[in-house]
Amino acid sequence: MRHITEAHLEALALGAAVLGTGGGGDPYIGKLMARHALQTHGPVEVVTPDEVPEGAVCVISAVMGAPTVLVEKLPGTDEQLTALRTLEAYLGREITHVMCAEVGGLNSTLPIVTAASTGLPLVDCDAMGRAFPEIQMSTPTMYGIRASPMALADDKGNRVVVDAVDNHWTERMARSITIDMGAAAFIALFSMTGAQAKSSMIPNTLQLAEDIGRAIVGAREAKDDPVAAAARILGGLVVFSGKVADVERRTMEGFARGRMRVEGVDEHAGEDLVVEFQNENLIARRAGEVLATVPDLITVVDDLSGAPITTEELRYGLRVRVIAAPCHERWRSQAGLDLVGPRYFGYDVDYVPVERLAGMQGGADR
Amino acid sequence: MRHITEAHLEALALGAAVLGTGGGGDPYIGKLMARHALQTHGPVEVVTPDEVPEGAVCVISAVMGAPTVLVEKLPGTDEQLTALRTLEAYLGREITHVMCAEVGGLNSTLPIVTAASTGLPLVDCDAMGRAFPEIQMSTPTMYGIRASPMALADDKGNRVVVDAVDNHWTERMARSITIDMGAAAFIALFSMTGAQAKSSMIPNTLQLAEDIGRAIVGAREAKDDPVAAAARILGGLVVFSGKVADVERRTMEGFARGRMRVEGVDEHAGEDLVVEFQNENLIARRAGEVLATVPDLITVVDDLSGAPITTEELRYGLRVRVIAAPCHERWRSQAGLDLVGPRYFGYDVDYVPVERLAGMQGGADR
Repeated sequence: MRHITEAHLEALALGAAVLGTGGGGDPYIGKLMARHALQTHGPVEVVTPDEVPEGAVCVISAVMGAPTVLVEKLPGTDEQLTALRTLEAYLGREITHVMCAEVGGLNSTLPIVTAASTGLPLVDCDAMGRAFPEIQMSTPTMYGIRASPMALADDKGNRVVVDAVDNHWTERMARSITIDMGAAAFIALFSMTGAQAKSSMIPNTLQLAEDIGRAIVGAREAKDDPVAAAARILGGLVVFSGKVADVERRTMEGFARGRMRVEGVDEHAGEDLVVEFQNENLIARRAGEVLATVPDLITVVDDLSGAPITTEELRYGLRVRVIAAPCHERWRSQAGLDLVGPRYFGYDVDYVPVERLAGMQGGADR
Repeated sequence: MRHITEAHLEALALGAAVLGTGGGGDPYIGKLMARHALQTHGPVEVVTPDEVPEGAVCVISAVMGAPTVLVEKLPGTDEQLTALRTLEAYLGREITHVMCAEVGGLNSTLPIVTAASTGLPLVDCDAMGRAFPEIQMSTPTMYGIRASPMALADDKGNRVVVDAVDNHWTERMARSITIDMGAAAFIALFSMTGAQAKSSMIPNTLQLAEDIGRAIVGAREAKDDPVAAAARILGGLVVFSGKVADVERRTMEGFARGRMRVEGVDEHAGEDLVVEFQNENLIARRAGEVLATVPDLITVVDDLSGAPITTEELRYGLRVRVIAAPCHERWRSQAGLDLVGPRYFGYDVDYVPVERLAGMQGGADR
């Protein structure tokens, strides 16, 4: 058991933005909200999945929708609590622990707000080990754990409980409701026992995010290379260096979809790298060759500071480097690739681990 | 207190189809389902709103969606009960009485199934005094009574509870969910006390439907004119006689929308009548002049038998007569017209009571 205090937030939010692989919303807003909540309510108790009692009632607290809209709607801590309490009433059982949906972006820091304002402990784990755009893209889905019942709340006072037969149906109906709610909603879902959390969630990812953040900050202070430092903790590789040349982006069906093209510099001069995204970066091609695909991580960072750049922040002319890194091994099973592999996202490409595609030495050390 | 038995069903379903003004789905299916339920569970107790205890928990049981799809999905009595029980659990209170959303079409007979299979009494009233396509188009809306919480269930086992701030929001979110559920859903909503049911619902409309049905059947047996008999009970007028010349129809956003044109015969020879509909008939124009609009009733019936024809059943060549009749007076208030007047449906036309437009003598006797 440890505590999250204001002192941890900077590194945690920074690392979570790296793991967000372009999606998950502006981590700055989440950090501000978490800071405010910690100042108001005091430190948040964080437990590892191993420390959670078997019979605990663990619930994911999150936001859903297009990150561009989420940023406009925040801060809204009341709605997070409304979603949690609505789910609790529907379950008819007291919720004992809060968890993160994803360790990327906003959804890694907002549960701190929920935990702080309810006084509940936060479990150091998440359901993706990164960020993904849809609910069923969660490791618990592979273990037969339902996302339903799921509560949604908006800033107008509307609440909805979805109780669907499977996680694809939960995603589908929750997505429609989120669009009705103004393209963003506060949600509580995936209620599970402590035993289920231990067996199905990806453990210690808040700690991982904090480690990544600290490595970046440490490298900056040591005048070292923060991008290389981040890649090292991720067990990944810096695969491209260049200048953003084109960005196409549109918000449709509740998602931010688009693509960007980077023109190479230095050793990549004359080449280009194209990254396509749906909230998160999905596939990177260098000179037309696939370099990395989901579920592996593709993160665009500022060339100098190592600060991760979300797909909303991509702008013409930015000097960036692109990190590719292996995902958690649970996603590399057939069941995992069925949920989040490149074919699910519409790419006619077999998944090949990024270590092989990008010619890394050694591969994952996570 | 009275009972609905199989002996009442024929007339009730027939009259409800007249009051359905083209919408509400095929009454034949609803009649079959109600018959089966009455055979299985015995007669249903029917009470007038005056007989309902003040503190009763009254709930509307209904189906929502495009009638064409509803017909394909029926029968599905389990889903009706699932919706009711889901709402009951969310309310945390035992439901004591079942009510009808609308007296038109399927939704006048399906609550008989719910009442029969739960053993709960059915209140002789409805929330529209006719049929309308949207949830907030209900007299309780004018009395500040919320449609939420509202439960939806589908044939796949999915359930949703919508708890929205007002009835427009309930409609909007429930409509999206209904589309996800396959364009049709079983619903339970508008929980209210007996006192609220008495003050806000339109009373004795099941009896009215039965009276209309009996008048039509009686006229047929007496070799009298069943169309005139129906119009008489409605306090309305037969405004057109002719042959269906064109029908345009499309299912969009969960509604059956379209228009039909009737070419006049006999005294209307050389004229035509155009009726536009969205599930229900909304506006009738004769030779370009508005003859009747919502909330007044526009019903197309078979020229000889007086059998009402839903918008799905309209076919080229049918010999029809069109009845226009006054709506319940509650709809003629400004609040009522804001909810269901012609402008709400997008027509740039002021509401004028059908008695004046169609030149009726006397007007409403309902």
